[in-house]
Amino acid sequence: MISVQSIYAAKQRLAGKARETPILSSPFLDEIAGRRVLVKAECLQHTGSFKFRGAWSAISNLTNEALSKGVLAYSSGNHAQGIAAVAKTFGSPAIIVMPSDAPKSKIENTKALGAEVILYDRRNEQREIIGAKIAKNRDLTLIKPYDNNDVIAGQGTLGLELGEQLSKCSVRNADVLVCCGGGGLSAGIAIALSDIAPNLKVRTCEPKNFDDTARSLITGNREENKSLSGSICDAILTPTPGEITFPILKKLAGPGLVVSDDQVLHAIAQSYKRLKLIVEPGGAVALASALHKKDEIKGDTVVVVLTGGNLDFNILSRALVSFENY
Amino acid sequence: MISVQSIYAAKQRLAGKARETPILSSPFLDEIAGRRVLVKAECLQHTGSFKFRGAWSAISNLTNEALSKGVLAYSSGNHAQGIAAVAKTFGSPAIIVMPSDAPKSKIENTKALGAEVILYDRRNEQREIIGAKIAKNRDLTLIKPYDNNDVIAGQGTLGLELGEQLSKCSVRNADVLVCCGGGGLSAGIAIALSDIAPNLKVRTCEPKNFDDTARSLITGNREENKSLSGSICDAILTPTPGEITFPILKKLAGPGLVVSDDQVLHAIAQSYKRLKLIVEPGGAVALASALHKKDEIKGDTVVVVLTGGNLDFNILSRALVSFENY
Repeated sequence: MISVQSIYAAKQRLAGKARETPILSSPFLDEIAGRRVLVKAECLQHTGSFKFRGAWSAISNLTNEALSKGVLAYSSGNHAQGIAAVAKTFGSPAIIVMPSDAPKSKIENTKALGAEVILYDRRNEQREIIGAKIAKNRDLTLIKPYDNNDVIAGQGTLGLELGEQLSKCSVRNADVLVCCGGGGLSAGIAIALSDIAPNLKVRTCEPKNFDDTARSLITGNREENKSLSGSICDAILTPTPGEITFPILKKLAGPGLVVSDDQVLHAIAQSYKRLKLIVEPGGAVALASALHKKDEIKGDTVVVVLTGGNLDFNILSRALVSFENY
Repeated sequence: MISVQSIYAAKQRLAGKARETPILSSPFLDEIAGRRVLVKAECLQHTGSFKFRGAWSAISNLTNEALSKGVLAYSSGNHAQGIAAVAKTFGSPAIIVMPSDAPKSKIENTKALGAEVILYDRRNEQREIIGAKIAKNRDLTLIKPYDNNDVIAGQGTLGLELGEQLSKCSVRNADVLVCCGGGGLSAGIAIALSDIAPNLKVRTCEPKNFDDTARSLITGNREENKSLSGSICDAILTPTPGEITFPILKKLAGPGLVVSDDQVLHAIAQSYKRLKLIVEPGGAVALASALHKKDEIKGDTVVVVLTGGNLDFNILSRALVSFENY
């Protein structure tokens, strides 16, 4: 398991580079959730998601030789944008392998940030195999989206920041709801909080039918999802919990929460109306859990991490047409 | 002219009550604007706009007797929500006079915050007259939206906060673009900055055909707008600069900037795509000025205050359909 020291080291590398994102709230959300809801607005991070932290942490730790050869990442879009933006800052070439059905805005932004994008078919090809092959042929450093210690340490800096912010609000005992794909963010936050605020408990949040982590936390083994598409939550549709991340979550996280796509759309609409924030489906799963899984959550206050805001307009439109008055 | 001391006093009353809103940026906005754009995201303030500051500043300064009788405000929506939310916190009844054509969401939110809402016809009735009559009949304290020293001092706290944040970014010399209706926010910020960062210059930003402040700053007299409707920027369609606010702006503000509704829609779309923020038309006028009036702005860096986020979906939809690819 990676150490909290490695998260503090990442925090030093990220100082003045990552944004400190604010904690927001609304009495309207409190009313729906039946308790106080504190929202960590990480969708306001550079490149629109927490992935910037892990990308900076990993790339800033590379040798000059590795930087000059370049980096490779596979990603449905947020890790891609994080890697592309950070690689550009370090003057390192970035090659990104993305699914052809990723949201258009994520593909476009990744290109606009200067990366070379290679598309693949999510149903018939495996990104791990394509990525490994290109990295080897072109002598690039592969930066995996979650099974990478430097990436997890970078995401963990969000946990340190959150712990400090919550301490200022005198919140020391609460469930911390985190959207979970491969588990890099949940694992990083869990390690950080276990050190600075052990009564803040990470709860992973996933979309229905893609609840591999929730099931794995029950069985104790890395369970798999049957499918890799069929939810609007594109950013967190991973096949199974990470090899490095799962043992961390098994040790430190509480039971997983699972919500429907409709509940996620409701959370997107509420975020628009009450917080003035754009949140993408995969980044709104934790807020949906706070609003709709109240019986599975403990305490007077719940903490929600909004993890990403790279939302295509058609989804926002669906959310607001469905839930304008709710 | 109100003193900077009264702004510091308001800051003390607001401590722990108003949110410190973050400074955001995006390389994509910098590219359009031709310089670095630093965005103060005040749309993330409680109730979705800076008006919460002025409302808290004014209501927290009332006697217990006045609080128990109640407060009255006239407002197109943002001052209404600020007053309603703060009055509720202080246990004071709030009566709000709003135009019947105000955005639906603003009217609904004001009611949901516990206020009694009285609608009037913006074209045929004068809110000042209606408001004064009700306040007298029911013995309420009228809190004007900008021509009130406590309100201006409250808005000025944004200027103190901004000055400190910009100092940390080593920005001490730049134009500070502020959306301007009656001028309460612009005047408050201008006084605060004249004290702590005199080379940060407030520039008022207004929609085309409602540029009373820009024209007044040229002639030196309080000029009037010909009409009070006919722009999407509902929040800042005031008849003429304030009696208290204009002398402050005349002394401290630079030349006004004026943008079209189309340029405002573009700014709303950019704010959605690049900052993940919901901004209403009247709150996006300053960003539109940064993006479209580059020849009228000085320096390598421009500062933009996004003042409000209470945006109805139909306007966002128009913005994104028109400017999805720009």
